[in-house]
Amino acid sequence: MVIDLNCDMGESYGRWSLGTDEAILPFITSASIACGYHAGDPHVMRRTVALALRHRVAIGAHPSLPDLMGFGRRAMAVSPEELMDLFCYQIGALREFCRVAGTDLQHVKPHGALYQMAEEDEHLARAIGEAVRESGPELILVTLGTGRSDAVCRKLGVRVASEGFADRAYNRDGTLVSRRVPGSLITDPADAATQAVRLAKEGRFQTLCCHGDTPGAEKIVQAVREELKGAGIEVRPLRDWLAR
Amino acid sequence: MVIDLNCDMGESYGRWSLGTDEAILPFITSASIACGYHAGDPHVMRRTVALALRHRVAIGAHPSLPDLMGFGRRAMAVSPEELMDLFCYQIGALREFCRVAGTDLQHVKPHGALYQMAEEDEHLARAIGEAVRESGPELILVTLGTGRSDAVCRKLGVRVASEGFADRAYNRDGTLVSRRVPGSLITDPADAATQAVRLAKEGRFQTLCCHGDTPGAEKIVQAVREELKGAGIEVRPLRDWLAR
Amino acid sequence: MVIDLNCDMGESYGRWSLGTDEAILPFITSASIACGYHAGDPHVMRRTVALALRHRVAIGAHPSLPDLMGFGRRAMAVSPEELMDLFCYQIGALREFCRVAGTDLQHVKPHGALYQMAEEDEHLARAIGEAVRESGPELILVTLGTGRSDAVCRKLGVRVASEGFADRAYNRDGTLVSRRVPGSLITDPADAATQAVRLAKEGRFQTLCCHGDTPGAEKIVQAVREELKGAGIEVRPLRDWLAR
Amino acid sequence: MVIDLNCDMGESYGRWSLGTDEAILPFITSASIACGYHAGDPHVMRRTVALALRHRVAIGAHPSLPDLMGFGRRAMAVSPEELMDLFCYQIGALREFCRVAGTDLQHVKPHGALYQMAEEDEHLARAIGEAVRESGPELILVTLGTGRSDAVCRKLGVRVASEGFADRAYNRDGTLVSRRVPGSLITDPADAATQAVRLAKEGRFQTLCCHGDTPGAEKIVQAVREELKGAGIEVRPLRDWLAR
Repeated sequence: MVIDLNCDMGESYGRWSLGTDEAILPFITSASIACGYHAGDPHVMRRTVALALRHRVAIGAHPSLPDLMGFGRRAMAVSPEELMDLFCYQIGALREFCRVAGTDLQHVKPHGALYQMAEEDEHLARAIGEAVRESGPELILVTLGTGRSDAVCRKLGVRVASEGFADRAYNRDGTLVSRRVPGSLITDPADAATQAVRLAKEGRFQTLCCHGDTPGAEKIVQAVREELKGAGIEVRPLRDWLAR
Repeated sequence: MVIDLNCDMGESYGRWSLGTDEAILPFITSASIACGYHAGDPHVMRRTVALALRHRVAIGAHPSLPDLMGFGRRAMAVSPEELMDLFCYQIGALREFCRVAGTDLQHVKPHGALYQMAEEDEHLARAIGEAVRESGPELILVTLGTGRSDAVCRKLGVRVASEGFADRAYNRDGTLVSRRVPGSLITDPADAATQAVRLAKEGRFQTLCCHGDTPGAEKIVQAVREELKGAGIEVRPLRDWLAR
Repeated sequence: MVIDLNCDMGESYGRWSLGTDEAILPFITSASIACGYHAGDPHVMRRTVALALRHRVAIGAHPSLPDLMGFGRRAMAVSPEELMDLFCYQIGALREFCRVAGTDLQHVKPHGALYQMAEEDEHLARAIGEAVRESGPELILVTLGTGRSDAVCRKLGVRVASEGFADRAYNRDGTLVSRRVPGSLITDPADAATQAVRLAKEGRFQTLCCHGDTPGAEKIVQAVREELKGAGIEVRPLRDWLAR
Repeated sequence: MVIDLNCDMGESYGRWSLGTDEAILPFITSASIACGYHAGDPHVMRRTVALALRHRVAIGAHPSLPDLMGFGRRAMAVSPEELMDLFCYQIGALREFCRVAGTDLQHVKPHGALYQMAEEDEHLARAIGEAVRESGPELILVTLGTGRSDAVCRKLGVRVASEGFADRAYNRDGTLVSRRVPGSLITDPADAATQAVRLAKEGRFQTLCCHGDTPGAEKIVQAVREELKGAGIEVRPLRDWLAR
């Protein structure tokens, strides 16, 4: 049994710091790095790529709608063609930082409002899939494992990794509890770790996410990693084992 | 005798159009395409790459300081490290549009205020050279042929193409007439064409530039191309013949 | 019988020019000036305010969603509170250019996607009304005369001017023909002028708009102005006659 | 003996927090609030104005070069006219948040690189003075008390408050110790407080600044305020006592 453990990274910008990337990197296997549209200026991007490499963590692009003020969390009426262009630009920018550091992108994970927009509009889900596919057949698209866009992109022939959340509560039917419901975010490291093992054993997901901007995120990630190990579940980056 | 003919392209942005790219492309061999920091949003970038390809014109990145409002024409106090990061980001973004269209970058040409900043600060000239080198030894850096940064970057081992201007007046000592002097910009197609042939024969330059935003630019470019041909000077993209 | 004639202005940005403000200003009575979020940098704003003043044209703010790349035409999921803040910022910025030029704002007209968003979400319509009211009870809000937001804002006690379009086709029921339908945009000056007189006589609208970015817009505006005059309809800025 | 105590405020942006405004406000008399160009989105601006009002702290605009990525700390080659336009825009935006909250601006303090640029280029110093003067004769310009721009702006007839720094070391000749010299930043609250009293007694300065982004800034500000009180020096906002 094997699973990937991912976290968002590189969400500082200019004078502003966000997250505790250095504390989290020892425990994860994949990092989704902001590409300048919701966070992550070019200097932060280079630093974050170097940091991930030092920890042998696989790197993915975390492209966003162009909305620095809203941190990419506000839905925007973009066309499928526009979305493909926005992805190509951001994927390329981060990819170049990878290239000059001697590595390449492992995956692409849409950021913020895009996650939900892809669920609600199949044309956008398909545009995301096509954007990843045009950037390379080996590139992995990380999708909401419980959502419709996952199936849409698999049908396109994109290499997909379905994502579950160690630190988000699930309903009995396997869907996520809405963020508006109290308790939807799991903040106790032990609880998140228990859920991670359960999700990994279910086999629905190929990658598990922990949110990097929760206070104490590094403790959650550490607990998750150790519990998975204790349960005999291998934690390795997607590129090492995910079918093409 | 062979020379390259280049022009800036893709300087529209969102609702705003600039330049007459389609009218100019038939006559040039290299296009320097804006990368989003002074002009050129992702949609414009994809369109311009496709257009250049259709005309078999080689593509270069035209990175800028981050100053959309000032069109990259205002000098900014950036450090050499910052400059390398800004270049890596923009080069990567345009390179991805090239990749997905089945081509790759031929060259990099710094935009606007950067051209002069590289002349005045050797650390910045070197940073530009290193940015191009880290993105690939085959990448060509287009530099001000009459300037100091040209020598600095050649010494670094960067593949350099020295640039002359068909439509800018030169002093007797081979330097450019300041833009503030009346007549510094050559607007008559025949005059530009005559100068182009003279510059090509001198052998100082490997690429000649015509400004794309001069009114009637397409006529200047056409006259230059035809006059060069008439004089028996081959006009071909740098990648085909410039020594590595 | 009296009516106001308005046009969008100041939609250039940095190196990019848009519209023919100088040709249009002689024929209109109110100018809605971009405030930097979809177009109009601070230099364009100062110039456009001066230009409007020279033609004794009343000035309004034309605030937008923060989306320069999309020219404010892409709907964005902003909250009512966010919208009020975005308006306050942009209204204030333009107002200061008016103040230092010796005048003040006459009106506020939401730009682009906001026009439709206010129709679809009453909370946003109310936020726009409240934003205008908090900036001053004398400020006039220009609304889609055939829409629901018009009534919502009138109920709030905001000073409202209902807008009709001289150059957009209307359905028999008084609603606008969708832009997707061929012929929805009236480009013949005589047709627009005839429609302007008809709309003015109907009495539904207090201000008529002509689009500034239609090719030949200045001819349409001129024809509209002259036809209104010929029909004995006074054309004067809203501030001179609209009830408080 | 009376002096003003000011601090920079409202330097958060979108998802990013910076500074401890709430902890500092009880101890200062003037707040210089970011206006969106280096920090401070419209939502942060409204909140910060409300917060300052609650603490009866006078409000000033803290305009910057347009450089969010560089936090306004990178010098940029702007013309005096451009600088006036940038100031007018930002002053107006913040002023509107003040107006709708029932107050008005007390002062304007240039941010970041502008402080030094005004020292090095008298044309820019004068442009800043004129920008403040055109926005209102009652508006106070806060200038580097030990610099040349102070005299330039006083000569223009601008209402000027010379600023000293409680937490920056001074040379014997009264100039600031360069930030590159170790110990140039005073981080011990007691030392800053002692220096504040000394500077206040010298009478060179009308306002003293403490940096809000130093770790433990709130303790420094508190110590300064108490030591000034203990020394019998009144601490009151500039508007209450500075000569017009």
